[in-house]
Amino acid sequence: MDRYSDYRRTARAIAAEAVALVPGPNFERVYGVSFHSNERPLVIVIPIEGPPAAIVPNLELKSFEAIGFEGTVFDWRDQDGYADAFAAMAREIPLRVLAVEGQEMRVFVHHALQAAYPGMRILDAERDISALRRVKTEAEVATLEHAIAVSERALADVLDRVRVGQTEAEVEAMLTAALFRHGAQGHSFDPIVAAGDNSAKPHAHARSDYAIRAGDALLFDFGARVGGLNADITRTVFVDHAPEGAQAVYAAVLAANMRGHEVTRPGLTAHDVDDACSKVLEGSPFADRIRHKTGHGLGRAVHEAPQIMRGNFEILEPGMVFTIEPGLYAPGAFGIRIEDDVLVTQTGCRSLTTFPKDLTVVGQC
Amino acid sequence: MDRYSDYRRTARAIAAEAVALVPGPNFERVYGVSFHSNERPLVIVIPIEGPPAAIVPNLELKSFEAIGFEGTVFDWRDQDGYADAFAAMAREIPLRVLAVEGQEMRVFVHHALQAAYPGMRILDAERDISALRRVKTEAEVATLEHAIAVSERALADVLDRVRVGQTEAEVEAMLTAALFRHGAQGHSFDPIVAAGDNSAKPHAHARSDYAIRAGDALLFDFGARVGGLNADITRTVFVDHAPEGAQAVYAAVLAANMRGHEVTRPGLTAHDVDDACSKVLEGSPFADRIRHKTGHGLGRAVHEAPQIMRGNFEILEPGMVFTIEPGLYAPGAFGIRIEDDVLVTQTGCRSLTTFPKDLTVVGQC
Repeated sequence: MDRYSDYRRTARAIAAEAVALVPGPNFERVYGVSFHSNERPLVIVIPIEGPPAAIVPNLELKSFEAIGFEGTVFDWRDQDGYADAFAAMAREIPLRVLAVEGQEMRVFVHHALQAAYPGMRILDAERDISALRRVKTEAEVATLEHAIAVSERALADVLDRVRVGQTEAEVEAMLTAALFRHGAQGHSFDPIVAAGDNSAKPHAHARSDYAIRAGDALLFDFGARVGGLNADITRTVFVDHAPEGAQAVYAAVLAANMRGHEVTRPGLTAHDVDDACSKVLEGSPFADRIRHKTGHGLGRAVHEAPQIMRGNFEILEPGMVFTIEPGLYAPGAFGIRIEDDVLVTQTGCRSLTTFPKDLTVVGQC
Repeated sequence: MDRYSDYRRTARAIAAEAVALVPGPNFERVYGVSFHSNERPLVIVIPIEGPPAAIVPNLELKSFEAIGFEGTVFDWRDQDGYADAFAAMAREIPLRVLAVEGQEMRVFVHHALQAAYPGMRILDAERDISALRRVKTEAEVATLEHAIAVSERALADVLDRVRVGQTEAEVEAMLTAALFRHGAQGHSFDPIVAAGDNSAKPHAHARSDYAIRAGDALLFDFGARVGGLNADITRTVFVDHAPEGAQAVYAAVLAANMRGHEVTRPGLTAHDVDDACSKVLEGSPFADRIRHKTGHGLGRAVHEAPQIMRGNFEILEPGMVFTIEPGLYAPGAFGIRIEDDVLVTQTGCRSLTTFPKDLTVVGQC
C-alpha cells in the first residue's frame, strides 16, 4: 500500500499503463497542496508498478519539495522549454496507454505528452480518476465541516445587517467581508446574492442598481473554501415580511429538502434521492416552477460525483458528501432554494449544514 | 470587418482553417462576458470565411443569447451527451486544420473535436490567438484603471489599520474586505500579505500564526478584478519603523522601478525594459538578492504577453499594458518589491498605478 495504490488499481481497471495527474482536486487529494497550474506544465505520472515521475517547472522545485515526492523529477527552465523534460521521462517510463484527467489537463500538456510518446494512446479517464474522491476521509469531512461553519457564521452576520434599500451588490460585499473575517481562504464559487425577481434565476448575478424592497425574497448561495474543501449553502429569507403567496412555496421547498434528509442512506441510489425530493415538489401546487435536479457531490471540487439526479443509479456509500438543494422559481417574481450539505453515514445521513431553515424574516426596523 | 476579423487573419497566418475559442480571456475579449467553463463543453469555431458555429450546453442557451451569436448553435442536453452536437458541427463546417488555445482548452474538448473530425489536425495556437489581447482598447484601459483605483483605495484603508501584533492572515482578511467594499468583483489572484522573513518569498502565503513585529517589512501583492480586467499592485511598507539595513535596499528597488517607467516607450523591446531595470539592481550592493524578471503583460489574464524579460525581443506598442515589479529578497530576513501597472503610450508610458511609493512606515502608535 502506498499513496498511489488507488490510482494504480484504476489504471489497471481501464487497461492503462499509468495515470497522469495535473494540479487540481485529484492532485490535492494525493499531496494535500495545490500548485498554480498556469502556463508552465507540471505533471505527475503514476505507472501501475514502480515509482512515479514528475515534470516540474524549475522555479516550482522548492515548493515541490514539500510533497515528499518518491520518484524522478524532470525539471525544466523557461529559457529551455519543456520538450526535453517530457522526452527524458518517456525514456525512463515508456508507455503505450496513459489515463489522464480530461477535465483538468489542458491541450498544451496533451500535446507535450503526445510529442514525447508518439505512439501512445491518451485516454480521458476523468470519471474513473475523480471517482476516487467520492468517499471522503474523516479529515476531509472535518475540514468541510469547518468550511461550512465559517459560511454559516458569515451568513448570520449578514442577516443581522440586511436592510430595505441596500443593493444586492452591497449585501454581497458584506457577505464576502464576513466570510474572510471568519476564516475563509477563498470563495467556493462566485457567490449569488439575489433579491426579488433576480432570485428567480438559478444563477443570478448581484445587481448594483436594484435596491432591495420590503417583501422581497433574498437568496444567498455561497460557500467558504478552507483547506482545499468547499462549502456550498443556500438560504432564502424574506426582507421586512414574507408575502402571503410566498409562504406556501417556501413550505413546499422546505418539505422537499427535509424529504431528502429523510431518505438518504447507504444502498439507495442518487436517483432515489432526487426522485424523492422531486416528487414532493411535483406533488405541490408549484410543479411548473421546478428548474433543476436535487444536488451534486461536494468536496475538493464544488461539483463532483455523485450527481443527485434521476437516471444516476450510482449507489450511495458511507463517506459520500452531496448537496440537497431543491428550489422553485417563479420567473419575474421570486425564487426559493434551500440547500444543505449532507454526509452519508453507516445508517442514514448527517447534515453538515446546521443553519436554521425555518421561514425567516430579516431587516425589520 | 466583423468582430472575428482578427481571428480569421490569425488562422490564415498559421495555415489553419478555423480558430476555436473556449470560455476564458480570449472569449471574453470577443463577447464581453464569461461563462463557467466546467464539465460541460462550450466551444465556438470561427472559420476563415463565413459565419461561426457554437457548441453550447442546453442549460446555457438563455445566457448564450446575450452574446448576439451570428452562426449556428449546436446545443446538447446532459441526458444525451455532446458527441452528436460535435458531429453535427463537423457536417456543417468541415475542417482539416483547427487552431485552439492550448492553455485554455481541456483534453475532454480536444477529444470531442478529434472524435467528430477524425482526420483533422489540432494546432496549439495559444500564442497567436492570445497575442490579439496584447494591445488594449480604450475601454479595456479605462476598466483596468478602475480596477487599479479600487485596489489602491483598499490598500490605503488597510495601511491605516495595520498594527504590530496582528497576524498576516488578519491583515489579508482586512484587505479582502476592503477590496470588495470598494467595488472589486473578485481577486485578480490569491493576494500575498507577507511580513518579516515571509516577505523574502516571492510567492508567500499569509500565516495565521505569525504576529507582525516592529521593524518588519510588510509586502502586499494583490489586485481587484473588475469587469473582466485584473489589477496587480505590490507595495512594501515597514511596520513601526524601517530598520536601517532595509532603507538602502528599498532605495535600490525603487530606483529600478523608476528606471522602468523612464525607459518604457514604443519601439523598444520587452528585453530592453527588463535589462534597464535589472542593471539598476545588478549595479546595487544587493545583486545577489535578485530572484525574478521585471514583469508581465496584464489584462484579461493576470499573466499574459508581453513578458518583460531578457531574451524577449517583442517590440513594445502603444496600448500594451504590463507590470514593472523589481524586487530584492534576503532569505530569512525580508524582501522588497514595488510593482506598478503601466500603459505604453505613443511617446513613452503612463503609470496606471498611482499609489505613493516612497518608503512608508505604518502602525506607529
